[in-house]
Amino acid sequence: MDKDLVKFITGRILIIVGILMIFPLIVSLLYQEPFRYTRSFLLTMLLTVATGWGLSYKKLETQTLYAKEGFIIVSLSWVLVSFFGAIPFVLSGDIPSLVDAFFETASGFTTTGASILNDVEALSHSMLFWRSFTHFIGGMGVLVFALAILPSSESDSVHIMKAEMTGPTFGKLVSRLSSSARILYIIYIALMLVVVALLWLVGTPLFDALLLSFGVAGTGGFGLVNGSIAPYDSAIVEFILGVGMLVFGINFNLFFLIANKQIKDALDSEELKWYLGIVALGILLITGNLAMNAYPFFGSVRDSFFTVASVVTTTGFSTAEFGQWPLFSQLVVLVLMFVGGMAGSTAGGLKISRIALLVKSGLAELKRIVRPNRVVTVHFEGKMIETKSLAEIFNYIIIYGVIFILTMLLVSFETPDFIYAFSTVAATINNIGPRLGAVGPAYNFSAFSPFLKLVLSFIMFMGRLEIFPILILLTPNTWRKLT
Amino acid sequence: MDKDLVKFITGRILIIVGILMIFPLIVSLLYQEPFRYTRSFLLTMLLTVATGWGLSYKKLETQTLYAKEGFIIVSLSWVLVSFFGAIPFVLSGDIPSLVDAFFETASGFTTTGASILNDVEALSHSMLFWRSFTHFIGGMGVLVFALAILPSSESDSVHIMKAEMTGPTFGKLVSRLSSSARILYIIYIALMLVVVALLWLVGTPLFDALLLSFGVAGTGGFGLVNGSIAPYDSAIVEFILGVGMLVFGINFNLFFLIANKQIKDALDSEELKWYLGIVALGILLITGNLAMNAYPFFGSVRDSFFTVASVVTTTGFSTAEFGQWPLFSQLVVLVLMFVGGMAGSTAGGLKISRIALLVKSGLAELKRIVRPNRVVTVHFEGKMIETKSLAEIFNYIIIYGVIFILTMLLVSFETPDFIYAFSTVAATINNIGPRLGAVGPAYNFSAFSPFLKLVLSFIMFMGRLEIFPILILLTPNTWRKLT
Repeated sequence: MDKDLVKFITGRILIIVGILMIFPLIVSLLYQEPFRYTRSFLLTMLLTVATGWGLSYKKLETQTLYAKEGFIIVSLSWVLVSFFGAIPFVLSGDIPSLVDAFFETASGFTTTGASILNDVEALSHSMLFWRSFTHFIGGMGVLVFALAILPSSESDSVHIMKAEMTGPTFGKLVSRLSSSARILYIIYIALMLVVVALLWLVGTPLFDALLLSFGVAGTGGFGLVNGSIAPYDSAIVEFILGVGMLVFGINFNLFFLIANKQIKDALDSEELKWYLGIVALGILLITGNLAMNAYPFFGSVRDSFFTVASVVTTTGFSTAEFGQWPLFSQLVVLVLMFVGGMAGSTAGGLKISRIALLVKSGLAELKRIVRPNRVVTVHFEGKMIETKSLAEIFNYIIIYGVIFILTMLLVSFETPDFIYAFSTVAATINNIGPRLGAVGPAYNFSAFSPFLKLVLSFIMFMGRLEIFPILILLTPNTWRKLT
Repeated sequence: MDKDLVKFITGRILIIVGILMIFPLIVSLLYQEPFRYTRSFLLTMLLTVATGWGLSYKKLETQTLYAKEGFIIVSLSWVLVSFFGAIPFVLSGDIPSLVDAFFETASGFTTTGASILNDVEALSHSMLFWRSFTHFIGGMGVLVFALAILPSSESDSVHIMKAEMTGPTFGKLVSRLSSSARILYIIYIALMLVVVALLWLVGTPLFDALLLSFGVAGTGGFGLVNGSIAPYDSAIVEFILGVGMLVFGINFNLFFLIANKQIKDALDSEELKWYLGIVALGILLITGNLAMNAYPFFGSVRDSFFTVASVVTTTGFSTAEFGQWPLFSQLVVLVLMFVGGMAGSTAGGLKISRIALLVKSGLAELKRIVRPNRVVTVHFEGKMIETKSLAEIFNYIIIYGVIFILTMLLVSFETPDFIYAFSTVAATINNIGPRLGAVGPAYNFSAFSPFLKLVLSFIMFMGRLEIFPILILLTPNTWRKLT
């Protein structure tokens, strides 16, 4: 492994994230906050940039980046960025415990939105801004951002983007993966600004509109008031956020195609059809179930649309206490928690393409059993999918499942019942945030022990980076080579 | 499809099961029960044998049996046998509702042990005997039994045994699958009689010893007193039952090898090592967790040994209210519910061989990612397992998962919470019987609607016959061809 290369790129990432802290620093000045906020960001910026410079000052000799190094760079960067990103919370005293602040920042960068805060409104404007801004940075990817603004060779980008982008992509979309990170980021920012503008036009204060849009774009779920989105109590705000979340659950290569005027190709995407179909089915099932249980019809549609959009995109904003819904609706929400958004979007979960392929593979097996002499193949996005590719997806699900069970066993020591333990792991590994449980989505993670908070932070990293980079980072072999 | 062949074999099965009712009839005479019991069995015997004769009186012209017909014969026989087996309960008035009696009988034949009875002790001796006897018949297989006592061609046997035997088998054991059903049944009866003798020697009444042994041999879970095994309150009885259950969770081909003096080959079985390893780990984890929570040590070992043996073999006998255990122990039990026994045993669940292969496949994927240039293959029982075979197992799990979720959605309309719905489906599809839930393993299925009882009956059939035969039976195409 090329140790210097790992250090070099990781160092550069730190410098960039350090510089990005200028934004919350400006916010603290604009709102004329007590000096300790400005100072916290200033000191952290210095520390982060200095560390980054220390790691990357050495001029590089080699420039070839292999897949394994890509994994290590991505996972190491995410952990370090979450560590340095946590420091302002600690220095300012808004989140005194470093473990709590690390959990909160990891939750932000991974766009999970799980919080250890009992009172969000106690945070200053600059801290709230930074907290939501991590969603925006982490949504598209910390390293993709670096690639977007740093000059870098094409082959490097591919390995890093492969490690940071989520889900398997098939068909026409693959060839676009190596296209410039810059274009993806421009689309990302443009779409985010549209959401800001719409929210602002319907009367949301600009500060709120901006921070909520960070959450929508990154499909994170940090709110800025206690009770997430419910206190706004506005159908039009919920509608804008709901549609916004669904848009950011779409594979970004589709927007790239649309920007290239290949609209027909984009709309041809099989994964998009599955995505919209699953969303529609979810809304239908929940609305029907709520209506059957004498919930008012308009309120049912509104709540089920928002909840389905929030959960399937793994954003985690909440308006309804879905812990109080009938069990059937809760189960639908629980299933959607695992589905997640499209591959190549900012959403977490298992991804639509994986789910679609699993279902298609299962159906093909049934056909094979009914007609043993016929050859039955699985097609997706107009391509025949080989058994080897299917096996890769299956294996991912197995590893995901084993990690899920092991984490649940750990969590069980600090949770009262099954659904609580189950939804704690489901909410973190799928990067959603709120949990189904006795106390509904508003309940937070503050009661867990520091050990479990660290474990769950790494589960969030695994969810965001699709497990393997973090597993490789945690092997002793990697550390022997890095030090 | 050869309609006559399906009718012929199904008819013969009915005749055999009708004749087997002579045993409960003898019990009703021995215990000098009211005449309605003797009459119920007599009438049902006549009805069953007559129907069987009506289906199979026609002399067969063709004799070739294809895999698909094997599936249909197996599933149709199991449903019909459960229907006719339910009639004595209804006629005698011990279980007045036909749906309830069908559920109870399906639960018996599939060796699930889930019950709709609120008071088991209200049943007469003959009804108790018949109820437990269905475990014994269903354990090794209704059709294998037929093959064991009817003259039949070798190729027929293979297809039927394939459809009725559970789990994928690999390596040396496969070649033995076509060996005579008769030898397997002799081993089965002999082992069962050993359990009867041991229970009787330590003071269990002979009637109880016999019925409990039926449950042990078939890995069913019907008890004959309220409270399952707990009322016996005897460590030695629990030990005999526990070891007995574990023995019947072993692939029967191993006993065949041992009977053939190929003891080394039998002990070489990789699946056996996984099985014993999982059992040991389960006992260790639960004992440790109970000890940590100030449970007395000896009692913890006793309860965890019995519970692990009962759950991993999907028998479902219970001594401890594991619903009251700490959450960690409950989760271990819940995971074991899905593991099940070895392939080719009388146990249900996903089977050890599937679990072992999933884990090995996941580990191989991890190795591949760390060393992308090396070819990593999966081996089991000394053989390389091709991706195609792995894909078959994956697909089985997918179909299993989809059916699990859909059933849970149906069950959710009649259950109060998640764990209740989850464990209801887990207990039926894995043929276990008791459920984790608010009220512990003793709680029964009587409160469900007739519709849900029928659905769960078919879920039990799916669990016992590994889904596909029942799915094929339920396609309209099959019915068009059968009628």
